[in-house]
Order: sequence, then C-alpha cells, then structure tokens
Amino acid sequence: MKGSLSPITVCVPQLIATATLVIDTSGSSFAEITREVMRFVAESRAKDGALFLFARHTSASLVIQENADPDVRNDLASGLDRLAPASAGWVHDTEGPDDMPAHVKTMLTGVSLHVPVIGGALALGTWQGIYIAEHRAQPHRREIVLQFIGSRL
Amino acid sequence: MKGSLSPITVCVPQLIATATLVIDTSGSSFAEITREVMRFVAESRAKDGALFLFARHTSASLVIQENADPDVRNDLASGLDRLAPASAGWVHDTEGPDDMPAHVKTMLTGVSLHVPVIGGALALGTWQGIYIAEHRAQPHRREIVLQFIGSRL
Amino acid sequence: MKGSLSPITVCVPQLIATATLVIDTSGSSFAEITREVMRFVAESRAKDGALFLFARHTSASLVIQENADPDVRNDLASGLDRLAPASAGWVHDTEGPDDMPAHVKTMLTGVSLHVPVIGGALALGTWQGIYIAEHRAQPHRREIVLQFIGSRL
Repeated sequence: MKGSLSPITVCVPQLIATATLVIDTSGSSFAEITREVMRFVAESRAKDGALFLFARHTSASLVIQENADPDVRNDLASGLDRLAPASAGWVHDTEGPDDMPAHVKTMLTGVSLHVPVIGGALALGTWQGIYIAEHRAQPHRREIVLQFIGSRL
Repeated sequence: MKGSLSPITVCVPQLIATATLVIDTSGSSFAEITREVMRFVAESRAKDGALFLFARHTSASLVIQENADPDVRNDLASGLDRLAPASAGWVHDTEGPDDMPAHVKTMLTGVSLHVPVIGGALALGTWQGIYIAEHRAQPHRREIVLQFIGSRL
Repeated sequence: MKGSLSPITVCVPQLIATATLVIDTSGSSFAEITREVMRFVAESRAKDGALFLFARHTSASLVIQENADPDVRNDLASGLDRLAPASAGWVHDTEGPDDMPAHVKTMLTGVSLHVPVIGGALALGTWQGIYIAEHRAQPHRREIVLQFIGSRL
C-alpha cells in the first residue's frame, strides 16, 4: 500500500443549511435521491464543506451504491434478504413478517451519511448514487434531513 | 418515487462543543443513551447543526433503532449472532470465543454516527433511539465522544 | 447501564480543510491509512473538531477496526466472505464473480466516517486504526476525500 495526499485547500465555515426531503417509496426497493440532494446543495448556495443526510426511520436506510446497472440494486436487496430472512424465527412479529427483517437491514446499512461538497458540487465518485433503501414490503412516506456545513457561494 | 424538499433554513456556525460519555455496559446488549445525548445537547446550548457520536472501541458500536418494543433489540442481537456466530472457525481467538464475533458485529454496525439538531432538539424520528451496542459477553466500560457543530442558543 | 458525561469544552469553528488521499490497494485486503490521516490533520493545523472521510467507490469501503493482531483483519475479511459469497447466484456478473460481493460488502461497511479531533490529535481508541477495505480481488487505485471542520491551531 502506498498513499499520496493532494494539496490541502482551506476555507471558513459560514453556513449551515437544513431542509427535509420527503420521499414516497414504492415498497421494498432502492430509490435514488441524488438529484434531490444536488438541488438542495445548489439552492443552499453551498460551496465547500460537507453534506449530511439522516433518515428518521428504523426500517428504511441510506445507501451510496452503484448507479449504472439496475441489477446491482436488485442483487443488493437479495443480498440483504439472505442476511435477514423473514423466516428466521423473529420474536417481534406484531407488525408483520417483513418488519423485523427491515429493522435488521436498517441496522446493517445505517441511517446517517455524509458526502463532501467541493466547489458547489457533491464529490461523489463516478459510479456512486445516493439511495433511500425501503426495507418494508409496502410503500411508505420517508423523511430525510439534509444539512450542509461549510462555505457559501 | 417522488420527492419534495421543504424550505431551507440557514444559520451561521458559531459553536463546536465536545464531551465524552462513559457508559458501563452489562455485557451483550443494546444500552440506550438518547437521554444522555439530549443532556449534552441542552448543556452545550446547541441550536441548529449536527451532533456527532463516535465510539472509541472495536467490539462495541453505535446503533439508531426502534425504542418501543424491547423484543426488537433482542431480535437485532440474535440477527447479528446469525451473521457472526462464535462457531465460525475464527483464527483470532486469544481473547475468547466472543471476541472475533464482536469485531465483525462492530464492523457491520459502525462506530460513527450523526443526528441533526434543529431548534435545540435532536431531530430523531418518532421511533428512533440511540444505543451503544455491547458485543462482548462481559460488561465493559465504553467511551463515546459527543460533538456538536452548529449555532448557539 | 449508568452513564457519566465529562465537562463540555467549546470552541469556535474557523476552518474547513479538504484534501484527497489516493491509495493503491493490493487487491482484497484491509490497508491501514491512519498515518496518512494523521498527516492531513497535522498539515491542516486542525485543533478541535471532526475529521470526515469519504471513499468515492462502490466496491471499497472505510472501516475502523483493531490495529494490533493482523489475524483480526483476515477474520474480518472471511466474515464478509460468509455474508456475500461469490457463489450466491448474483444476477449482475458482467464484471466478474468478485464484483457483486464487493458491492454488498461495501454497502454493509460503508463509505462515510468521522473521527473526532481533540487538541490537534485524532481521538481514536487505543486499539482503533482506520482502514480502506478493498473488496475487489485485483489491485485498484482508490480515492478518499478527507475534510476537517473545526478550530485552528
């Protein structure tokens, strides 16, 4: 392993911007929200800093993953089904057989993320998209708090 | 999928507050720390920004999950046992059969989290609580660094 | 469970520093980057705040784990192999049998992390190191965006 560090750029923190993104999911699936997050960054006049995303839920999560081949998202979902199958003998089943697997999948993938913002743009890699992963079988309304901390355009 | 973005609120970063929360766990379990984190937010006079939590450990992790039915936490723990069983033939076993599973569980659930703070309150969802997940069998003393970055009340 | 909160220290946000760390991995392995991150913190003249790391990839991830016994990293890798085996019948296989498992492993371990910085030093626990986990079989060049938000030395 060898590492090389680029020159460091610096700026002054000037702005905290906050908004809530509401998404109606279509049941178990990965719904891309990259475009909505980009719009928040642009409308906030964010320049350099970090963008924080937080999902206010325990059965839906935030995932940054491949944005090209839709088969990847299907395989990610089936990969999670392997890890938390409905048939695992969960004790908590009052909200249906998909509920406890959804909690486990949310725990494994997380509800808190950040993405760097550089020169007013999300510093995502070429193949990265931002997704809200709905782990319940039925459609749900989901809330994601978006925040930018950094300098202002 | 359709998304709607709320109006954006803005403020100026004024404050970074830092403290360490020490928790004595009772062995393998999810211990809720939401109240302690709320106290930190209040005593810091935090207004709008983000609260960051970091667990300084490799066999205990931070999880945001359902705070109502205790069965959910038991199922989350048994869900992790399925994924990293003591019997998996781990090479590293000098610290006991529960040690390597605890490292894997910590890797899967993570030691770094944030929660938005809006108007002086944690913007958790209705069913979300913050937990330190102890993955070792025996009780341990755990340290969590709490930090707020944002505006001041 | 009983928790005790240390006194709170405060400072003013003055600095956002950003750089990119480029790492050439040697194929499937955990490569430690703690030293490179420490160098970024020192060269940024970071004092109190938080250090954010973001991996711009969908088949390599960021992990904070045990830095003493190399067997632990080997067991972490084999633990992930159990969870996302090459033989699971993935639909997406155009980029080779190691590609879809690498996406699942990246989703489970994450590309976004923070570590507190206190008095100019990373507040890692005694046994914690920061790793880029390469989940593809072959060597890859990986980019990690490092950012500090906080006060200045």
